[in-house]
Amino acid sequence: MKVSIRLPQPPTRDYEIEIGDLPEIVIEGKALVVTNPKVAGLHLARLLGRLRADELYVVTVPDGENHKNMATIEMILDRCFEHRLDRKSTLVAFGGGVIGDMTGFAASIFQRGIGFVQVPTTLLSQVDASVGGKTGINNRFGKNLVGAFHQPKAVYIDTHWLKTLPKREFAAGVAEIVKMAVMFDADFFDWLERNDLHEEENLKEAIRRSVEIKAWVVNQDETEKGIRAVLNYGHTFAHVIENESGYGRYLHGEAVAIGMIMANRLALQNGLFDAQSAERVKALLARYGLPTDYEIADTEAFYDHFFLDKKSQNNRLTFIVPETLGKYRFLQDPEKERVMAVLETFKRGA
Amino acid sequence: MKVSIRLPQPPTRDYEIEIGDLPEIVIEGKALVVTNPKVAGLHLARLLGRLRADELYVVTVPDGENHKNMATIEMILDRCFEHRLDRKSTLVAFGGGVIGDMTGFAASIFQRGIGFVQVPTTLLSQVDASVGGKTGINNRFGKNLVGAFHQPKAVYIDTHWLKTLPKREFAAGVAEIVKMAVMFDADFFDWLERNDLHEEENLKEAIRRSVEIKAWVVNQDETEKGIRAVLNYGHTFAHVIENESGYGRYLHGEAVAIGMIMANRLALQNGLFDAQSAERVKALLARYGLPTDYEIADTEAFYDHFFLDKKSQNNRLTFIVPETLGKYRFLQDPEKERVMAVLETFKRGA
Repeated sequence: MKVSIRLPQPPTRDYEIEIGDLPEIVIEGKALVVTNPKVAGLHLARLLGRLRADELYVVTVPDGENHKNMATIEMILDRCFEHRLDRKSTLVAFGGGVIGDMTGFAASIFQRGIGFVQVPTTLLSQVDASVGGKTGINNRFGKNLVGAFHQPKAVYIDTHWLKTLPKREFAAGVAEIVKMAVMFDADFFDWLERNDLHEEENLKEAIRRSVEIKAWVVNQDETEKGIRAVLNYGHTFAHVIENESGYGRYLHGEAVAIGMIMANRLALQNGLFDAQSAERVKALLARYGLPTDYEIADTEAFYDHFFLDKKSQNNRLTFIVPETLGKYRFLQDPEKERVMAVLETFKRGA
Repeated sequence: MKVSIRLPQPPTRDYEIEIGDLPEIVIEGKALVVTNPKVAGLHLARLLGRLRADELYVVTVPDGENHKNMATIEMILDRCFEHRLDRKSTLVAFGGGVIGDMTGFAASIFQRGIGFVQVPTTLLSQVDASVGGKTGINNRFGKNLVGAFHQPKAVYIDTHWLKTLPKREFAAGVAEIVKMAVMFDADFFDWLERNDLHEEENLKEAIRRSVEIKAWVVNQDETEKGIRAVLNYGHTFAHVIENESGYGRYLHGEAVAIGMIMANRLALQNGLFDAQSAERVKALLARYGLPTDYEIADTEAFYDHFFLDKKSQNNRLTFIVPETLGKYRFLQDPEKERVMAVLETFKRGA
């Protein structure tokens, strides 16, 4: 015999992203702010000046990608239990992408899921991590391999925090903004060429546009089965670069900048895109001090690395490339010779 | 400025529970069976005889509630990575409630969520844990405090496995069946009085009815905000009994049996239910060898224990009691004197 379980649709998970001066945030119930010592030292006072809750707690966790692991998640959960947070409590992620990913994941599994609010403090996390609901941690097998899809209750993007952001980290955020424009919006790309993101109003506008595009993409494909893969433009190459050069030499956004240059060259090699547009992308990245060149020591080894990526399932290889400015194309299993020809142009001494 | 994130509804999570002889289960992609050494020793060969997958792996994890923790989850996840499971792979929970809860939780966080199938091997997990999507683990702060709501892709209930189930564990499962009848279905209660669950066909029918009732409850209230709390009938007392007597002395279902007797007495004390029905519940539980009495050493201490339960938020106390057979009632903040009067009847030497 059979019993059919017909589950009701879960309640709405819609939320707002507010871009501008941090408003007063009022949280019902208990709140736990999760941050790192650096962000706390620079900015915690300002955050707390605008945060109201029935009870408020703060936990600082060690900074950096190599602490984005289960041990830190357990540390956050321990604080939740010690402060007797309950199912109506809220976590507040205050920091960059690492803090956001970990806080979201801890919120998703504490008592089978509680709400969380994001206050991202880096440009990269403002344009990228604040939309999509991806949370997670690394382990010895790779990055972001354990986690959950868990949507925030709200996201507050304030460019104030960026004033203390190192120049390289700012540029790394710009790389993701450029990525959005090249893949989805030629007008936005033109606008980026004409406007300096060091001007606050321009920056807000660029964040708004990037977030809108990402939301449009994610809403069509929340769990990454189709169009969301386009957000990996430049990333197939970037992952190999990060891996080869040792994590830490390049910021993720820097590796993505190089990866986009490589992807563009692969597009040209396959009769897509055009040399002038490729030059424009390169010039825009260079304007923000992003690296646009890279020396590949061993092109065969670089090629083999593609197949270690978790996204290349069943030994199939998909590259995301621009067809024209503002229009993406999936390049499925390109001939090895064409890929190698592109890699050769990055070969040491080439 | 604001960006509104309007998320699409996630894909359906409906599934089927099949009760009867285990059919051939065909899994596309890789499958990892999670079980414990005891169940594997008795039954793994039969399961594997009916399981097809592109690649099949088995992991045995240590048995028992005290291993239902993050260390075991990490052990399961490690096997997933070592065997290169991907987002299309499936976990198969083969065991009782502990195995089901842990396998479901591991599936919910491996690469942000993959599918899992349940093959519950105890009566308790067949009638209780196979519906509702609750997964999770214990930690030093309490039971099931970390976890996720994650629905299985399918549940296969085969009474064959129960042939090796110890008598006490069988009875513990019956306690949860009786609970469903007393709370929701007077006809089912009458039926249980007339039919012996040691007869296989009766047992299947009782499982079907219990699962249907639980599905009806859970579908109205997936995340436990209202009617689902009714499933805690007997549990408010049971948790104190388990805690006082040390986990291990009573099986959970045995503590629930005693808890139901206590709840019934509290109902009578508050002018609900009737003495004859209370006797019928007691007689039915006793027929399966379930304990129906308990000696409370210190009634004040027992009462205070209620407030340590995570479900008594803000020092409010809610008991679930029968109004009549088949009809539940929430008893909110009953006078302490009335509760104490009930506890006194269980006092040593009373």
